Amino acid sequence: MIITIQCSDQIGLVADISRILSEHRLNIVSMREHVDKIERMFFMRLDVDGSAAEAELTNRLETVLPIEAVVHVNPSPNKRIVVMVTKEYHCLADILIRNNFGTLGASVVAVIGNHDVLEKICNRFDIPFYLITYDEEKAGSEDKIIELIKSYNPDFVILAKFMRILSSLFVANFKNKIINIHHSFLPAFAGANPYRQAFERGVKLIGATAHFVTDDLDEGPIIAQQIVPVNHSFTAQSMVKSGKEIETAVLAKAMDLVLTDRVFVYKNKTVVFE
Amino acid sequence: MIITIQCSDQIGLVADISRILSEHRLNIVSMREHVDKIERMFFMRLDVDGSAAEAELTNRLETVLPIEAVVHVNPSPNKRIVVMVTKEYHCLADILIRNNFGTLGASVVAVIGNHDVLEKICNRFDIPFYLITYDEEKAGSEDKIIELIKSYNPDFVILAKFMRILSSLFVANFKNKIINIHHSFLPAFAGANPYRQAFERGVKLIGATAHFVTDDLDEGPIIAQQIVPVNHSFTAQSMVKSGKEIETAVLAKAMDLVLTDRVFVYKNKTVVFE
Amino acid sequence: MIITIQCSDQIGLVADISRILSEHRLNIVSMREHVDKIERMFFMRLDVDGSAAEAELTNRLETVLPIEAVVHVNPSPNKRIVVMVTKEYHCLADILIRNNFGTLGASVVAVIGNHDVLEKICNRFDIPFYLITYDEEKAGSEDKIIELIKSYNPDFVILAKFMRILSSLFVANFKNKIINIHHSFLPAFAGANPYRQAFERGVKLIGATAHFVTDDLDEGPIIAQQIVPVNHSFTAQSMVKSGKEIETAVLAKAMDLVLTDRVFVYKNKTVVFE
Amino acid sequence: MIITIQCSDQIGLVADISRILSEHRLNIVSMREHVDKIERMFFMRLDVDGSAAEAELTNRLETVLPIEAVVHVNPSPNKRIVVMVTKEYHCLADILIRNNFGTLGASVVAVIGNHDVLEKICNRFDIPFYLITYDEEKAGSEDKIIELIKSYNPDFVILAKFMRILSSLFVANFKNKIINIHHSFLPAFAGANPYRQAFERGVKLIGATAHFVTDDLDEGPIIAQQIVPVNHSFTAQSMVKSGKEIETAVLAKAMDLVLTDRVFVYKNKTVVFE
Repeated sequence: MIITIQCSDQIGLVADISRILSEHRLNIVSMREHVDKIERMFFMRLDVDGSAAEAELTNRLETVLPIEAVVHVNPSPNKRIVVMVTKEYHCLADILIRNNFGTLGASVVAVIGNHDVLEKICNRFDIPFYLITYDEEKAGSEDKIIELIKSYNPDFVILAKFMRILSSLFVANFKNKIINIHHSFLPAFAGANPYRQAFERGVKLIGATAHFVTDDLDEGPIIAQQIVPVNHSFTAQSMVKSGKEIETAVLAKAMDLVLTDRVFVYKNKTVVFE
Repeated sequence: MIITIQCSDQIGLVADISRILSEHRLNIVSMREHVDKIERMFFMRLDVDGSAAEAELTNRLETVLPIEAVVHVNPSPNKRIVVMVTKEYHCLADILIRNNFGTLGASVVAVIGNHDVLEKICNRFDIPFYLITYDEEKAGSEDKIIELIKSYNPDFVILAKFMRILSSLFVANFKNKIINIHHSFLPAFAGANPYRQAFERGVKLIGATAHFVTDDLDEGPIIAQQIVPVNHSFTAQSMVKSGKEIETAVLAKAMDLVLTDRVFVYKNKTVVFE
Repeated sequence: MIITIQCSDQIGLVADISRILSEHRLNIVSMREHVDKIERMFFMRLDVDGSAAEAELTNRLETVLPIEAVVHVNPSPNKRIVVMVTKEYHCLADILIRNNFGTLGASVVAVIGNHDVLEKICNRFDIPFYLITYDEEKAGSEDKIIELIKSYNPDFVILAKFMRILSSLFVANFKNKIINIHHSFLPAFAGANPYRQAFERGVKLIGATAHFVTDDLDEGPIIAQQIVPVNHSFTAQSMVKSGKEIETAVLAKAMDLVLTDRVFVYKNKTVVFE
Repeated sequence: MIITIQCSDQIGLVADISRILSEHRLNIVSMREHVDKIERMFFMRLDVDGSAAEAELTNRLETVLPIEAVVHVNPSPNKRIVVMVTKEYHCLADILIRNNFGTLGASVVAVIGNHDVLEKICNRFDIPFYLITYDEEKAGSEDKIIELIKSYNPDFVILAKFMRILSSLFVANFKNKIINIHHSFLPAFAGANPYRQAFERGVKLIGATAHFVTDDLDEGPIIAQQIVPVNHSFTAQSMVKSGKEIETAVLAKAMDLVLTDRVFVYKNKTVVFE
């Protein structure tokens, strides 16, 4: 069983939590705990051996925790995700492959594209693809997408190279549930054309950043980042090619972390118990 | 305060430990816990805010732990190390620099060499250097070294490119206290001339391994490993040059981990709470 | 245009080669040259701007090179590969995806499996899959596979987690054309169950090696290697999971290098002009 | 012998250059060549076996190259560097150690500090240390430093954590000769307090950048960059600690590249033949 707890910090939390686990005859195999001393926030992830009624254990834990505590006992084991894409295939294909072979840690329930380029690969994997272009006004398109996503009730919305900026309204509908892959090691090269920017600046490394989406473009809480070395022999185009490899890897990593309940969000940061 | 605990696993350990900390009004800032389910061993490192009488807290913790438990409350904050060297300067110099500026996390109390090449650099830093050659029979030389080391009562003996094989007797005198840097990513290229072996095999990466020394040569518990890429343009000599950089870095990393009480040894493995 | 040359070394080779290119009004955009001084071997890869009749240019270059020189002008731009698999999907799926979107740098013309587990994913991508079990004697199965591969006349045979050992006869049929992904950073953990070996040894990094297949198991010329850090919290099973990511990445890297004519094989080594 | 050439690109350069080398009976062991097709610039580094009169060979090469070509035959084998520091020891100490053991690839001829903190470590290594505070007006202090540096006639000036911004006048005196280590993976976190910025942004990697100094602060041509992973458990202070390791490594790497004549500067970029 996995248990996650996020609340304000106070003395005795670990003692109270572990006493309750002990009373339920649950053995703690692995425990990760972090206190942000500045924000006075407490984060814990437990991997325990044994079995217990989930609802009862949750209630019991809540009795000893601060009122605003967020407790998850065995957080949704069958998570559902909706993927949003534009034209680039690499992240989507990686997700579809893992989904197909049951190693994603979630089920892809739908793919939404604002272009039809990736419809065929979805068909190959028997995953429903919805084309919602931005031909009409943006608000109307977004309303359709929001409605569609809600109909699938996903745990997370993955922006797998979705190249449109989402409105505040959209983001508010899926708070801390939208994960984006950005093609630079943020905050370097925020905004458009990061590889072009990187090429012109002559950097020796490029990267990718997976982050939760907030109102502030490219400013949401970072989940994972990686880089890959480049040199003078790279053109902006070959940087794009190398970048796609790292984008795929970073998004896969971030999804694995989130889907195994290792990521906690607060303010504009994350705690990640790798 | 740092607290480390190593013992056999049983249900309720975390509850008991954290209750005692809570009774002492100690707040757990960071907790790392691991259970080896195969060996049924429990490892914990706690970083707590607050103050308590160390001996009293240790005793109190021992009352709730299995009899063989090893508990350290604020494990020796002023650790002492003896460094053993042969002719290569890179690891020793890195240690002397950190020691000089107070960032090593320990004090270098003596350097022992079986050659005099590195005497001068020790002099520059006002660190006693002892030359003990292996001119006479090995056992005699080792006896002198053991006696000399014991006179300094160090927490750890660092083999910073000491190129002689130590006897079982020597190792037995400093169980789990001798740290060696080996110039390959073990178990690849164990034994002599790993860079020559790597060159001849045409590998695309070379590395270094820091490990505790046991009776079995190059087989002790591994603390840290890193690699660096190489290619066809490397000679065996330039592999040595690159390798020295990584040797220095890996030994520094391993020492930092050990000296901040993040490394637990059991059987032929380590638990490292980075 | 890409030009590759491999021959014994002698003074004036670069002058002669570049003079001929200059006579053909070809501008050298990027040149990589390496001489193995021990073996007295010369390797060159040129990326040139301009156009020339390939056969004529090849002949012209051969007039100034040692008799045994291997010259390729625009080496087969439409390379063909056959993939051999057993049960694990990760490397094959990555190859099929790149093949499907035209970014592999080659065409997958057939997949051969000794189990039928991966037939369906091949069907999804309209790639012919052939099941050749080893139910009968090994030699007979291999004969069938050799015949089948030859019928496709591929440039390379990719062992994408093909878990049977190939005979000398098989290897001799496709000299320097068979690429294998081995699930360890060779020479560490050669042989069977490398992740189990790695777990038991308590290493802090695991890796993967892509290499050409020769008669000596796990001893062929290495093309690419990468590692990924692990720690005490990994089981042998989670090492396998992490290992698969790196296996996929290393094989993809090696194939990209080979398919863009950056890899030269000689003796038991490679020259790789990244 | 090492030969470096930088000039505008034209057809036949390699043929002409290699013909001259061949006439001098020089064998090309390793050749690196790059053409920036956008800027139409040609860069070449040759490692050749054999001997030749340097001045005569240089003249001979210049006869076939464009008028503005910069040719170096065996570029100053005994390079001299002046190091500028403030209070942090890590980069300076690494340089002093390598200098002391003859592995720096240059000689440290003087150290200049605007604080006296690092005087003692220079004394330990018998390297002259000059204290030039900025107590008086900045221009006056800089004039003194310029004069002092010029008296040593160094090949390069290394800013090893020198924490004052240099004026345009200063920079103009040592064009493409000043190398700085910046404590972030530029362009992320340019300006002051990059680790504080990194902490507040919640990034998962921090880095360092070695670059030539130009008039535009933190905007000069980048030589080398590396990163190190961080996570939620890092404070701004522990990021500084980790950052220092990577700063030291990146500056050492950049110096090694520059001092072995592998770095070419043009516009705001570098070509680095690693």
